[in-house]
Amino acid sequence: MSTQPQLKILPLGGYGEVGRNMTALELDGAIMVIDCGLMFPESDMPGVDLVLPNYRYLIENQDRLVGYFITHGHEDHHGALPFVLPQAPAPVYATRLTRGLIEVKLKEHRQLGGAQLITIEPGERIQAGPFVVEPFRVAHSIPDAVGFAVETPLGLVIHTGEYKFDLTPVSGEPTDIHRLAEYGRRGVVALLSDSTNAERAGHTPSESLVRDALERVFERAEGRIILATFASNISRVQEVINVAELYDRKLGLVGRSMESNGEMALELGYLSAEAGTLLGLKELDRLPDDEVVICCTGSQGEPTSALTRMAEGTHPRVTLRPGDTVVLSATPIPGNEELVHRTLDNLFRQGVDVLYQALVPVHVSGHASREELKLMLRLTQPRYFVPAGGEYRMLVLHGRLAQEMGMTPDRILVVESGEVVQIDDQGARREGQVPGDYIFVDGSGVGDVGEAVLRERRRLSQSGFLLATVCLDPDDRAASQVALQTRGCVYLPEAEGLMEELRQAVLSLLQSSQAGRAGLEEQIVRRLGELVTERLRRRPLILAQVFSAD
Amino acid sequence: MSTQPQLKILPLGGYGEVGRNMTALELDGAIMVIDCGLMFPESDMPGVDLVLPNYRYLIENQDRLVGYFITHGHEDHHGALPFVLPQAPAPVYATRLTRGLIEVKLKEHRQLGGAQLITIEPGERIQAGPFVVEPFRVAHSIPDAVGFAVETPLGLVIHTGEYKFDLTPVSGEPTDIHRLAEYGRRGVVALLSDSTNAERAGHTPSESLVRDALERVFERAEGRIILATFASNISRVQEVINVAELYDRKLGLVGRSMESNGEMALELGYLSAEAGTLLGLKELDRLPDDEVVICCTGSQGEPTSALTRMAEGTHPRVTLRPGDTVVLSATPIPGNEELVHRTLDNLFRQGVDVLYQALVPVHVSGHASREELKLMLRLTQPRYFVPAGGEYRMLVLHGRLAQEMGMTPDRILVVESGEVVQIDDQGARREGQVPGDYIFVDGSGVGDVGEAVLRERRRLSQSGFLLATVCLDPDDRAASQVALQTRGCVYLPEAEGLMEELRQAVLSLLQSSQAGRAGLEEQIVRRLGELVTERLRRRPLILAQVFSAD
Repeated sequence: MSTQPQLKILPLGGYGEVGRNMTALELDGAIMVIDCGLMFPESDMPGVDLVLPNYRYLIENQDRLVGYFITHGHEDHHGALPFVLPQAPAPVYATRLTRGLIEVKLKEHRQLGGAQLITIEPGERIQAGPFVVEPFRVAHSIPDAVGFAVETPLGLVIHTGEYKFDLTPVSGEPTDIHRLAEYGRRGVVALLSDSTNAERAGHTPSESLVRDALERVFERAEGRIILATFASNISRVQEVINVAELYDRKLGLVGRSMESNGEMALELGYLSAEAGTLLGLKELDRLPDDEVVICCTGSQGEPTSALTRMAEGTHPRVTLRPGDTVVLSATPIPGNEELVHRTLDNLFRQGVDVLYQALVPVHVSGHASREELKLMLRLTQPRYFVPAGGEYRMLVLHGRLAQEMGMTPDRILVVESGEVVQIDDQGARREGQVPGDYIFVDGSGVGDVGEAVLRERRRLSQSGFLLATVCLDPDDRAASQVALQTRGCVYLPEAEGLMEELRQAVLSLLQSSQAGRAGLEEQIVRRLGELVTERLRRRPLILAQVFSAD
Repeated sequence: MSTQPQLKILPLGGYGEVGRNMTALELDGAIMVIDCGLMFPESDMPGVDLVLPNYRYLIENQDRLVGYFITHGHEDHHGALPFVLPQAPAPVYATRLTRGLIEVKLKEHRQLGGAQLITIEPGERIQAGPFVVEPFRVAHSIPDAVGFAVETPLGLVIHTGEYKFDLTPVSGEPTDIHRLAEYGRRGVVALLSDSTNAERAGHTPSESLVRDALERVFERAEGRIILATFASNISRVQEVINVAELYDRKLGLVGRSMESNGEMALELGYLSAEAGTLLGLKELDRLPDDEVVICCTGSQGEPTSALTRMAEGTHPRVTLRPGDTVVLSATPIPGNEELVHRTLDNLFRQGVDVLYQALVPVHVSGHASREELKLMLRLTQPRYFVPAGGEYRMLVLHGRLAQEMGMTPDRILVVESGEVVQIDDQGARREGQVPGDYIFVDGSGVGDVGEAVLRERRRLSQSGFLLATVCLDPDDRAASQVALQTRGCVYLPEAEGLMEELRQAVLSLLQSSQAGRAGLEEQIVRRLGELVTERLRRRPLILAQVFSAD
């Protein structure tokens, strides 16, 4: 067989969807994994708690795993580790802050014990099996983010992680343009680059834009300021601290993840505040309103989060009042619009002043827009390009952007999760398939709930169910007991007439039918279905069970 | 009692929500209704087909009803008529096109027979009870839209309907600025003005912007052009026809509502095309690709619509192919983002070129932005202002806009559906309440499904149900039959072990318990709940029923 080096790129998650980012590289039999993220369920996945990439390939090939390399501390890049690591163990490489956030998650799932975490730094060279991996600095909406340059006999493979070319980031360093230029000169065989903003023209504004907007908010606000953002957006929290200090306000962190992330980031030095700036809520309550800032969770309208409960007037420790200014320093993740709008409406109902993206530029994206994507392509001048991290249309648009820059279509590989890319000295091609579908987490179950159960849930959510139970008297069917149970279909107190009609229909079926138990069940389901459709034009899930003494 | 005139404004729907617009005015005991719309269900209303305003007040006071005045032909302004009219009949006043669209709807619901429809024109004065109503022209995203100026002894009440100050509309006339200025001079006691875009700064672009974008699309496209928009957006369809004719293309209308609305609008003269421009699909199939345009439904990703099925490759008559250009000439209504994005992704998977708002300005809003809202307030100089038609935050922002223009807060009345405004020579105030909540349509049921049933559906959608049936042997409980039925909770083929465990738990409960039938059911539900929580950390709806021979 050929001894030519062969490189495989396995897009395990995040290709054709936003979230659950996971890419594996395979070389000389060894496998390295870049990111291990989760996704939050979409609206057609009722009852699902989390969505993981399908990591069966990693379980089956765990003897060949040389390590997990995590680009940054967002859950869609590391949140699957507590599920994946126990079944496919390998060392986890991450920068300090990212490692801190991973530890918080692993501890939550009681999986910290067995994990081997290794702290890395940009510029370092890490040998992992046949791979030499160099993390490089990128600017994103969380500090200490990196991309990875992986040395292979075919050239460098560059995975950008998530980035923007913010030249004036508020905390942390800008994306390392010099290093990327150097990679480009050395020779990049494949670039995998973040596609999230491939629909967006121009250049994503710098985080410093938010800084300016926040200063204007603080200047005007006469009462308390309550600001909600992602708990992981530590750069944003730092900015709020900085502006609070500038305007002589004290700040409290509210919400479970805001508090735990804040604590960890302070400990590691990724958040800094003057002594006395950060206070508990009790201490803040003693200050005049115009000296108070509360930084909290809930920017996505999550039902049990701090801001949502404040908006509903049910937060145990913070009661909003006229004079307060509430700032929503985030935009809704697609799918969350309704929840966010509901929270905004409820905030207005509390009589507070509400500022959000539609009114004031209090948020900027952490992802590169089209001109920046072009800059990345230009700097790294890759031989092959695989658009990463994005819904399918974003991958295609990112690919077309590369084409507009002169790359020929054969060098651009738009793949969805599970579609393997092979590269050797003959070229690159889509070849082979690994599992790329979803693994659902529901309660304590991982992977047991699939499309079949979701179909039942969707059906139940539309019209509920109707179940008929018959205790058959084999001698005198007219004397049989018939009971109906229904939920989610009709309002029972007002549907007694219909229920009685359905019961009678079952009874008369019993008397006229000669069928045995199984046949009877089928007949009952059919008859009830006809009647319910006729009376209600609804399609509940209908079940029948027949018992008999014999 | 006082013989002073008293005016009541009853916001029956659309105040604090988008859709189901309905406002009643009450004077000298007479009631006139402006708009009678429906709303599409939000994501927490599973299984609901349509959402109506609560029209109980109209039913109870039908002897005092003098008429329904409909501002324009969108369903959120007239779609509730087929439900409301039979129970609270009164003449329906509408302009020609609006009347045509109402007739289509009434016919669908077999309610056209009893309805009394009266065609009106801008500038006409209609006497209805004590009200003199004058429709005035407004520009919106559908032709033949009007607002209403209602003469009362206290001054004019102006309801804007939905409008923008488009000075170069593509079809129809611009909003009648002169008439509005005249009303302002005559004296407006109350202005009710559309708040949909109260979050948006500046001036909504003219529909002619879309015209320019479409021309560029047609110039570039080498194959077929498939364009999706709202079937009711007849102005947009007209534009597409115009551009098609300019570029020597023929056009087909695809999708049930696109075809029926198109037919009606052609008949009434609100759509016009040269002979031979509009063709059936069979005729289009015979033409070269670069002479074909298809104008279809599905711009919101609705699951069974034309565009969605084309994107999935399941449309019976249109199969997409590389070379086609698909244009999405609409933006997602909040809540529809996921569906629209899914359709876009599927279109890209078909290999076609896809153009949409993020890439090309192929859509503009039909609603006035903040500078236009200010113009309306300035022109009409109302004594009192009631922000209409919008989610709560939009109403508040619209109210604040009036305040910024110098209106004192006591003259601005932000109300939600159901909160009555009373105006007399003493002033205006919120006083009284009418039903303002939702009426759900589900199948053939109107109003029978309420919050209780929806709560069950939401619960079922999360974890399904588990139902235990016991046929009790009163002499030997160990010999009782126990059966479990479950859906939407676990994947049954893999949960046999758990099911058997649950069954055994019920059996051993039977043997240990001395409780009678009702007590037993309660104990079973509790025990199963504990076990399921422990094993799965899921919370299905749990039911138990016990039968016994005695």
